[in-house]
Amino acid sequence: MDKPTYHIFVCAGFRAGGNPQGNCGKKNSAAFLPYIENEILDRGMDAQVTAAGCMKACDYGPVMVVYPQGLWYGRVDGEAAIDAILDALEDGGAAAAHLID
Amino acid sequence: MDKPTYHIFVCAGFRAGGNPQGNCGKKNSAAFLPYIENEILDRGMDAQVTAAGCMKACDYGPVMVVYPQGLWYGRVDGEAAIDAILDALEDGGAAAAHLID
Repeated sequence: MDKPTYHIFVCAGFRAGGNPQGNCGKKNSAAFLPYIENEILDRGMDAQVTAAGCMKACDYGPVMVVYPQGLWYGRVDGEAAIDAILDALEDGGAAAAHLID
Repeated sequence: MDKPTYHIFVCAGFRAGGNPQGNCGKKNSAAFLPYIENEILDRGMDAQVTAAGCMKACDYGPVMVVYPQGLWYGRVDGEAAIDAILDALEDGGAAAAHLID
């Protein structure tokens, strides 16, 4: 099975047996999933997007983590942030303004 | 913020706006989460466990992916499989019997 070059986990604040909570869920981060999927297709990136449960970085929510690069991003609050993150991946770098230190 | 040495994503088959589906959800993979959490504590591993939505490897479900190592595991169907995978991580290797090629 082919593994993606970029595996993007979008915190959707899932809780076991409950509704989305935390900053990511409250800010409705799951609503970004279609935009990210479309951008990946438009850009022809070898990337997979997965919605995730709480990643324990709620203070920085909405949170996105890109593996295996190990890039943790916070305050991913709209299309401009997503564009910056995907631009940086394509350039082989990181979107410094959104990195979680 | 400290990042985990091992970030273990357990497919729980979440679907946006719906109930868990796919092989992982049907096999109730989310029920393994407490066992994995306890094992990590017992072993003193620097690991984080995150429940995930569908990772598009349903044929191999239940699926677990370990990043940044990039290890994709399938048929993680009980405590013995989880033990083998955690043993291998501690040894710096991979549990070959469960790897998704």
